[in-house]
Amino acid sequence: MAPGGTGARRLSAGVSHAKVNSPAVSFEKTLGEFRTLIDQRLGDLLPDPTSSPGPLHEAMRYSALAPGKRLRPCLCLAAAIACGAKDLEAVLDGACSLELVHCFSLIHDDLPAIDDDDLRRGRPTCHKVFGEALAILAGDALFALAFQVCLASHSNPQVTTKLGTILATASGSAGLVGGEVLDILSEGKKGDIDLLQTIHARKTGSLIEASCSFGAILAQASEASIQACGSFGKSVGLAFQIHDDILNETSTSEELGKAVGSDKERNKLTYPALLGLKESERLANKATQEALESLSQLPGDTELLRNLCLYSVQRKS
Amino acid sequence: MAPGGTGARRLSAGVSHAKVNSPAVSFEKTLGEFRTLIDQRLGDLLPDPTSSPGPLHEAMRYSALAPGKRLRPCLCLAAAIACGAKDLEAVLDGACSLELVHCFSLIHDDLPAIDDDDLRRGRPTCHKVFGEALAILAGDALFALAFQVCLASHSNPQVTTKLGTILATASGSAGLVGGEVLDILSEGKKGDIDLLQTIHARKTGSLIEASCSFGAILAQASEASIQACGSFGKSVGLAFQIHDDILNETSTSEELGKAVGSDKERNKLTYPALLGLKESERLANKATQEALESLSQLPGDTELLRNLCLYSVQRKS
Repeated sequence: MAPGGTGARRLSAGVSHAKVNSPAVSFEKTLGEFRTLIDQRLGDLLPDPTSSPGPLHEAMRYSALAPGKRLRPCLCLAAAIACGAKDLEAVLDGACSLELVHCFSLIHDDLPAIDDDDLRRGRPTCHKVFGEALAILAGDALFALAFQVCLASHSNPQVTTKLGTILATASGSAGLVGGEVLDILSEGKKGDIDLLQTIHARKTGSLIEASCSFGAILAQASEASIQACGSFGKSVGLAFQIHDDILNETSTSEELGKAVGSDKERNKLTYPALLGLKESERLANKATQEALESLSQLPGDTELLRNLCLYSVQRKS
Repeated sequence: MAPGGTGARRLSAGVSHAKVNSPAVSFEKTLGEFRTLIDQRLGDLLPDPTSSPGPLHEAMRYSALAPGKRLRPCLCLAAAIACGAKDLEAVLDGACSLELVHCFSLIHDDLPAIDDDDLRRGRPTCHKVFGEALAILAGDALFALAFQVCLASHSNPQVTTKLGTILATASGSAGLVGGEVLDILSEGKKGDIDLLQTIHARKTGSLIEASCSFGAILAQASEASIQACGSFGKSVGLAFQIHDDILNETSTSEELGKAVGSDKERNKLTYPALLGLKESERLANKATQEALESLSQLPGDTELLRNLCLYSVQRKS
């Protein structure tokens, strides 16, 4: 059974009235509308905090509904539009499943045994508020929920099996979790640009690439468009992560909503540490250009994807 | 893409030659053959320890291939036979995905922040060997792999979407993870039989029920048979867990391959603690009887399911 069955009609209406592609509506406004839609739907999909076990559901909601960029679900929605989707209702749950996986990974990465971070999205991390046991299990439950939501996100089981497989592959040992392990293993060690690229491609790139593929698949795009969205996502993921490394070096904790400089403290392999700030910026811009070039192959309105790509390397947090 | 694509032919031959239903082959021998098949297939499905990141893959294999009862995949195979399946090749990967979820949950439950156990399946727990960070991430990667395997376990996407949804629901906040949280929250508190039943139904029952449903679905059984297998699994899960509580009270650490008496130490809610050993045994037998009654509705050979049910309450470890 699909979790959180309510609210679909309301969300659908919200999306169709948003006129996301009208030139009169600014990118920032559209992004804000997307985030509102995503947060409303996440709120519906997440288990009720008054149902048992309450503390688990509270921990899940605390982390998943904390203010965030919602980059992955926004990329998914924008990719669907770039592939010609008109009604985003069929895309929203797939988009939310990506955010649930992202959120699960943040909770586990922040744990004392891994990155030991106290601050995330401007709030104390999940384990600081709910304790380590509940944080581990809230991460696990969000990961399970991501698959429930993903597998109920479309009426065609061929589509959902494909999406679920992409989500599992992007999350597991060949993707996000494998990248996190490589990141940990590289701490304090000499590494080269190849290793750094592998870490980033898995840890950040895999889910961002999956996000763009999700949008194309849910828009029932051609195989060529699905591939083009995947390539776009791969390049955006790289640009995003290089910019993340730069921000971790140049921003304040207040701006980022999480601890800064911690990469340096841990002797983490980062682009600025390996190549300096200037060369890192050049590479981020190069990846951005490659991403933008992929867009020419898509049949729909690519303006939002283009803006999200530029936002990834221009954001301040 | 299906992970671990090799070995299917060999396994298929192994299964078809096993003559699992021949009266001449004892239950123990069949169980041993099942376990060998499952372990071989798990070995193929798990990532290669020589591929990167090696330590993650080693941790995943260390835990997933540790000697175990393999109750869940065995129930899945036996349920398929009870529903008339002749060739178990189509069932084996679904069965393995259940074991991968079980294994992920054991690694996380054993963590210092949760049950803090040093011994599991007769070996040091995953975090004792690989450290906490790798143990958390190995659990996560096994969970992701479970969905990859499950979603590639059958050629019909309607079947795989159904199985994936059952697996996610049985694992998440309404199942296994939710049960673990209730278990933690109940420690040292006064609880009643209703709460205890809820904990067990979620923490152990949900995945055992799913295991029996998986077998029926993969055997393309009728809706009535799928329901009957689910009911059987529900009762077996209860009987298994009551017996587990009893063993934790009456066995040695050597017999169980894990710490004993720890339930009492933590003031955990258990059947013996709440009702005494004698009444606990009576309830385990009652659940066993209810399970056996469900079998009459199944069209195939139910001997193995019957024996697995009896084994659940007669085992010494």
